[in-house]
Amino acid sequence: MLRQFRIDIAYDGTEFFGSQRQPVRRTVQGELERVLKRIAPGSESTAFAGRTDAGVHARGQVVSGRLAWRDDGNALRHALNSVLPRDIAVSAASAADESFHARYDARWREYRYALHIGPTPDVFVRRYAWWRRRDPDASLAQRALGELVGEHAFGTFAGAGRSQDEPREALVRHVRLATWTADGDTRSLRIIANGFLPHMVRNIVGSVVRVADGDATLDWFIEAFQRGDRRCIGQAAPPQGLVLQHVYYDDLGAEP
Amino acid sequence: MLRQFRIDIAYDGTEFFGSQRQPVRRTVQGELERVLKRIAPGSESTAFAGRTDAGVHARGQVVSGRLAWRDDGNALRHALNSVLPRDIAVSAASAADESFHARYDARWREYRYALHIGPTPDVFVRRYAWWRRRDPDASLAQRALGELVGEHAFGTFAGAGRSQDEPREALVRHVRLATWTADGDTRSLRIIANGFLPHMVRNIVGSVVRVADGDATLDWFIEAFQRGDRRCIGQAAPPQGLVLQHVYYDDLGAEP
Repeated sequence: MLRQFRIDIAYDGTEFFGSQRQPVRRTVQGELERVLKRIAPGSESTAFAGRTDAGVHARGQVVSGRLAWRDDGNALRHALNSVLPRDIAVSAASAADESFHARYDARWREYRYALHIGPTPDVFVRRYAWWRRRDPDASLAQRALGELVGEHAFGTFAGAGRSQDEPREALVRHVRLATWTADGDTRSLRIIANGFLPHMVRNIVGSVVRVADGDATLDWFIEAFQRGDRRCIGQAAPPQGLVLQHVYYDDLGAEP
Repeated sequence: MLRQFRIDIAYDGTEFFGSQRQPVRRTVQGELERVLKRIAPGSESTAFAGRTDAGVHARGQVVSGRLAWRDDGNALRHALNSVLPRDIAVSAASAADESFHARYDARWREYRYALHIGPTPDVFVRRYAWWRRRDPDASLAQRALGELVGEHAFGTFAGAGRSQDEPREALVRHVRLATWTADGDTRSLRIIANGFLPHMVRNIVGSVVRVADGDATLDWFIEAFQRGDRRCIGQAAPPQGLVLQHVYYDDLGAEP
């Protein structure tokens, strides 16, 4: 008998070709389903709340699927953790409503992006942060990010794969929060939205850092964003700084 | 012309078979000397302040060597960082006294050992901490560590490779500080001594945790330590929690 489950996972994305199943390459979904086939044969394929690129990490990825598992969620968590490779860990698992879908039911997704600022690279954070010698100006970064809050078309920050003649509505997302914080030699960008276009966060980080470093003006940033011109943006930030931090299935309170 | 240099390095030990050069396997000294051969051909072989095992990390390893390098230390640091693999980083390099030797001149060495306490493994710290479900009792851990401070024979915590009939004097080391601290889900052991026997820190951690978990008594620990009996100790803690934090070439002040 198949029952719907919700599985919360974290992974170190360094050695994965992204989250989504692929024929040959090692992916998070591929590894998870390989293990499910072994401990719960007959289970259906899974759905992931957010798609992450190669090298991108997750602390709070949510997975749903109809599984051939007779025991409870806690037993499923233990069984999965004992056989999953060490770069994936299940933090929680529970039986879910039959209609639950990790991707379609998600209301808000939170990503974080980490930068490490210092004269030399730090071997212990190189897999989890973008190393920069120069410290981006926090006030400029925050002003650029402030422009993104609200409901806008985010075509400027869409990945190159998106068709140029897509209708504007398909590019509209609602950004609920976008902040820049400094702590020691770490700079963190936090962004919550109802959804993200492919590569959107890394393109935002690349452009915001360009402005905050003084290599482009805030006016340039605002104009490119308003015109929806993706030829105007800076280089995408590298994947290793990015983490899918949390997926929200309820509405956010006043202050997330 | 060869000149003596001091090079301070950090490395992520996960993908090295330890610090010391070996014929075939990938080691930190092997990689560093391979790169020196390229940027400063004719340089002599190097000396490391502390020998670290496979999987053990360093934040403050110190290396000395007579190098065929005509420019200053800062240029050497930049040149090395641009060609070294990404799991080694040079934090400082400078011309040193002709007589300087990283190993023989070191007065004190500081190691840290990190444990991550939680119901599930954390994929982001698995390479840098020992994951334990149970939180060791901090007061018991500190009492056991307190026994080690001062000048003692540390045969109990020597690696299995040490001969049983070694003279007691060869096993004597002076431990200057040994502390246990808790911060969030991290537990850290900090130990400073004038020198360490092979595997000594990992054997100490394994035995201290055994006592702090209640699997052995403090009396057992003290008696094994005083008798110098290495058959009494617990299992060595795994390598990934261990970091060579700092090497001191001057005498320590009152409070290191």
